[in-house]
Amino acid sequence: MKQSQLFTKTRSEAPKDEVSKNSELLIRAGFIHKEMAGVYVFLPLGLRVLENVKKIVRDEMNKIGGQEMMMTTLQPKEIWEKTNRWDDAVVDNWFKTKLKNGTELGVGLTHEEPFVDALGEYIQSYKDLPILAYQIQNKFRNELRAKSGLLRGREFVMKDMYSFARTEEEHNMLYEKVADAYYRVYDRLGVGQITRRTFADGGIFTKKFSDEFQTFSDIGEDTIYVNEEKKVAINKEIFTDETLEKLNIKKDDLVEKKGIEVGNIFPLETKYTEALGVRYKDEKGEMQPIIMGCYGIGISRLVGVLVEIFGTEKGIVWPESVSPFKVHLVELSQGDEVLKKKATDLYEELISKGIEVLFDDRDARAGEKFADADLIGIPHRIVISKKTEEKGVLEYSNRITTETTGKTKEEIIEILK
Amino acid sequence: MKQSQLFTKTRSEAPKDEVSKNSELLIRAGFIHKEMAGVYVFLPLGLRVLENVKKIVRDEMNKIGGQEMMMTTLQPKEIWEKTNRWDDAVVDNWFKTKLKNGTELGVGLTHEEPFVDALGEYIQSYKDLPILAYQIQNKFRNELRAKSGLLRGREFVMKDMYSFARTEEEHNMLYEKVADAYYRVYDRLGVGQITRRTFADGGIFTKKFSDEFQTFSDIGEDTIYVNEEKKVAINKEIFTDETLEKLNIKKDDLVEKKGIEVGNIFPLETKYTEALGVRYKDEKGEMQPIIMGCYGIGISRLVGVLVEIFGTEKGIVWPESVSPFKVHLVELSQGDEVLKKKATDLYEELISKGIEVLFDDRDARAGEKFADADLIGIPHRIVISKKTEEKGVLEYSNRITTETTGKTKEEIIEILK
Repeated sequence: MKQSQLFTKTRSEAPKDEVSKNSELLIRAGFIHKEMAGVYVFLPLGLRVLENVKKIVRDEMNKIGGQEMMMTTLQPKEIWEKTNRWDDAVVDNWFKTKLKNGTELGVGLTHEEPFVDALGEYIQSYKDLPILAYQIQNKFRNELRAKSGLLRGREFVMKDMYSFARTEEEHNMLYEKVADAYYRVYDRLGVGQITRRTFADGGIFTKKFSDEFQTFSDIGEDTIYVNEEKKVAINKEIFTDETLEKLNIKKDDLVEKKGIEVGNIFPLETKYTEALGVRYKDEKGEMQPIIMGCYGIGISRLVGVLVEIFGTEKGIVWPESVSPFKVHLVELSQGDEVLKKKATDLYEELISKGIEVLFDDRDARAGEKFADADLIGIPHRIVISKKTEEKGVLEYSNRITTETTGKTKEEIIEILK
Repeated sequence: MKQSQLFTKTRSEAPKDEVSKNSELLIRAGFIHKEMAGVYVFLPLGLRVLENVKKIVRDEMNKIGGQEMMMTTLQPKEIWEKTNRWDDAVVDNWFKTKLKNGTELGVGLTHEEPFVDALGEYIQSYKDLPILAYQIQNKFRNELRAKSGLLRGREFVMKDMYSFARTEEEHNMLYEKVADAYYRVYDRLGVGQITRRTFADGGIFTKKFSDEFQTFSDIGEDTIYVNEEKKVAINKEIFTDETLEKLNIKKDDLVEKKGIEVGNIFPLETKYTEALGVRYKDEKGEMQPIIMGCYGIGISRLVGVLVEIFGTEKGIVWPESVSPFKVHLVELSQGDEVLKKKATDLYEELISKGIEVLFDDRDARAGEKFADADLIGIPHRIVISKKTEEKGVLEYSNRITTETTGKTKEEIIEILK
């Protein structure tokens, strides 16, 4: 895409009330627009990143047999009353609305109940199980405060998957399959090395732990205790002698760290399926309860996390897998039409090779172009200028390694492929 | 995908209160699940169709320079008050909700105001225009009644594009560009031949007509008057002597038809940009108003329209461009393991060639498999059975032409490519 045609521009400042690094950089670089606290528009560059994150998550969920569907935002209260999650005294972050006739509706804050309700129509016998189903959808949570940019929104994009199993063994198999897929997601996003599966509170209806995926970061809201050798991490909320005993690990062997939660998986036992009356008939014709798991990844949150982790004071640094474009081509023709033509030809050649290019063809000063490129954060950069022409090369730089060298077109294409 | 693993199943009946053909067939075939009146879950097969429609629309909008972004569902009332569209007495189909502190919020029913507000940040000079920006998003409308399945939902998926132009001439150029792109969308969906651009009411702030795209259908809610030779169509709502005179056409030259609205494009003049104070500085440094257009296509509605238009009493018939899978492979091995293996090999070979296959590998009677395939409506079908084995061919049938013939594997692959 030609940058002269992109309607967004970089800004030198974000709104004053944006205190998080992710929202500040993303707003300044023109990736998101603040609609209100915790509610952000995804502008063209931002949407490209969001969609790239979705693609990775979708791909990994499909690989383990996940079936994608799309639930609704508007929710009838009846199904939530069955699990006692409708009352504001129990669940305090609902957004609610009303039909013309006064009937109260919920604005989807999570989707366990509607998933069980919808899939229940198709589950009769043991032959219909197991099922892994998921969606990527907006969620709405009426947070009292929302000051962490994309890390904690009132409206955000989430992937939520649900498993339905016949036995505890089958449930565990599915649960571990998803956990493995989550690691592959974080690896592909470039944060696998600094993300740990972490024991956390299982809540009120299971004696098991739940599992969070925590990415190490000083700005993390969670405190976790980590043993790298044994690959164990424990959330502070369950960091008791009892837990340590259960997990057979000593307090002294653990190191305290801060983490940002980038995913969680949760054994739901039979809580929701039983409450909504969804069972299956076994081989003997007897009705049996269904064991459920739920698995969340905040898609828009991950966009924010990547900015927090990799961003510098100069701007964003996107991992290649989610970058809005593969390469940023910056021309410094400064009125030289021959040079401009050469840059445009290179742009078209790269596109013809299937490489996604943001082409800074704007009539602007070199300093402005470089500052914008730093802020936008595309990992590969090519500069074509009078200087590079004289040397008979192109200037290639890598935002991640910060290496800058002269290279031929062919060498650069080899890198980008 | 193996049909034995698809969690949905066909049903012999839809809920009693589903009176529209589209929702009845889509529910029975397992494409959608009714959450409440006018609010439907997209099940795996339905989501595939929805995504295919999105892809076509997105592709055509990108080709004309449309920049995709994603607005928010939650809306602050301030921007809507500026255009006098917040008050329920003026706009009567809002869903509204509240923040914890009591602040009222809207649940996005349309997005003119937020688009102007967001883009306004990036429009300063004449150099920043024109802009074509769009999104594909859920919309929420508090309809009193919702009985037409996907044709009129309370929650539905829409593509809405907005143009921002400096002059009337530039506006007209963009407007016609989008109209042309709309025709290409309908062509690709297989309804181009029966869809007409139709003059309709321009509303209160333009003297121009708006343009609807109407697809001929006896179940259409709109009455239109059509002259095929002159390629003119007029909505009944503006079918007056004055209109006829303006368009220079005689009443007798027009034929009355019923139409389903599948898109509309609308000149908004400067109504929203002026109300929200978004102007641009021209070459002389003077502030000038911005002329806007809006362009809608109901994505989920189109899924319903295609079922209404092409569906038969036996089931859905998908146009190839949006079908959930390219081909339905039905094996009638009836316990014959050699035949089953052969069918599975064929399934894998087709997939390896990049062909999307729904493989009915279920252990079910032939009649049930055929009835399900008819209901699901994938245009190409291959049957492999003892009978076809004896003849040394595969049975190929086409759901659209209803042709059924014996063909070799190579001949079928040629058709599917």
